[in-house]
Amino acid sequence: MKAIIITVGNEILSGRTVNTNFSFIARMLTFSGYEVIEGIIIRDDIDAISRAFREASSSADLVISSGGLGPTFDDITLEGFSRAFNLKMVDNEMAMKMIIAKVGTITPERKKMGIIPENAEPLANNAGVAPGIFIKIAGKTYIILPGVPREVESIMDGTINRIRIKDFHYIDRTFELENTLESLLAPVIAKMMKTYGDRVYIKSHPKLSREGKPWVELEISASGKDEAALNSLIDSVIEDIQKEMIHKDY
Amino acid sequence: MKAIIITVGNEILSGRTVNTNFSFIARMLTFSGYEVIEGIIIRDDIDAISRAFREASSSADLVISSGGLGPTFDDITLEGFSRAFNLKMVDNEMAMKMIIAKVGTITPERKKMGIIPENAEPLANNAGVAPGIFIKIAGKTYIILPGVPREVESIMDGTINRIRIKDFHYIDRTFELENTLESLLAPVIAKMMKTYGDRVYIKSHPKLSREGKPWVELEISASGKDEAALNSLIDSVIEDIQKEMIHKDY
Repeated sequence: MKAIIITVGNEILSGRTVNTNFSFIARMLTFSGYEVIEGIIIRDDIDAISRAFREASSSADLVISSGGLGPTFDDITLEGFSRAFNLKMVDNEMAMKMIIAKVGTITPERKKMGIIPENAEPLANNAGVAPGIFIKIAGKTYIILPGVPREVESIMDGTINRIRIKDFHYIDRTFELENTLESLLAPVIAKMMKTYGDRVYIKSHPKLSREGKPWVELEISASGKDEAALNSLIDSVIEDIQKEMIHKDY
Repeated sequence: MKAIIITVGNEILSGRTVNTNFSFIARMLTFSGYEVIEGIIIRDDIDAISRAFREASSSADLVISSGGLGPTFDDITLEGFSRAFNLKMVDNEMAMKMIIAKVGTITPERKKMGIIPENAEPLANNAGVAPGIFIKIAGKTYIILPGVPREVESIMDGTINRIRIKDFHYIDRTFELENTLESLLAPVIAKMMKTYGDRVYIKSHPKLSREGKPWVELEISASGKDEAALNSLIDSVIEDIQKEMIHKDY
């Protein structure tokens, strides 16, 4: 299954903001069984948005966009999307309820976020106001997300199970390494990535000190068809890292 | 003058590597007088590369790519570029000298980096081995760069003066509005955009709450020939927004 990721936003094209939404979504899709075949970054421009969705629909099974869902004048992703597929924009009751639950009173700017393409389903946004959008057209799936990274992550976490490829397992395990610094861990992770190649992905999250000592949360993920093999692969990686880290106290 | 940035690389599409080359190049072009109208991220695939350059050439005056210039089998950006414009790949004496100066002896893998499109000029790479490429075709400029960020930065630093738009200034200022929501700010921004029209661009970035209260970072940018006029224009916009937002607490 092929996926294309669209990023909407002048702040990305001007180089002011690094496109971390792209890498977050790309990584999530890769580990859910998709091949991300292309990324497109476009301006907050209705024609550019419409053209990007139309072109993406010709080669991808899944298209995910981020950016341009908020209350301001330049948030026009849904209009561009609707134009691409000749859809009407309609008041969506569920979307409006989600927005009211967040902000209490409705203003014209807030109401705007509840007007979405016909037949689209709003996706709960636990980290912000504008709901995400889920819609299927001609057998293809479109997910439209806001631009704020924590909102992208929150909505995708709640949606990924609906698009994950069946019989494809993605395992993501975390464990804690007490009393260490990420900089001490870095060469160990590099060595593991060399040993285990593309079969696992290791990510470190440095944490605030506990009782004056820093610690690191390690996230190890792997994907494939054989769940048991993936689990024992991750077991070996964790064991190897723990061996390497003995005597490497902060 | 319009620019398009192409990023070549499976590691970007899988989400493993964040596309910092894109933001570096985009920012440099924005501050040099270009409008970056699109970004395209593609696989290490000769057809995809060729198509991306051809399409970019139809709407941009300047096209810059990063990735796929190295010695390995999957470094095929120059082949894709040559195919896009029906160019022969030829041994380039200056490129070969640059490579030998770096690595001493030539192997087949190293020689590959000195075979570049006909009429192209190699660009010195002070941070790595593969030279960048500079070429003009039908009045448009193409710059082809390696994928390693420090090499991209080094080659661009040495090349930017050749493409900078003369007498051009780009100013980008941010300020913070405490204790407010983006949806409260939206009508004020809309009013400012009406007042100041195309002379400035205002973008809001909603932020996580500080001590339980949300705040918004506002980015105001303007570009043109008269630097002092641009600065005082941005001053007026900031002043006007602050006036409008008094008593609009969250």
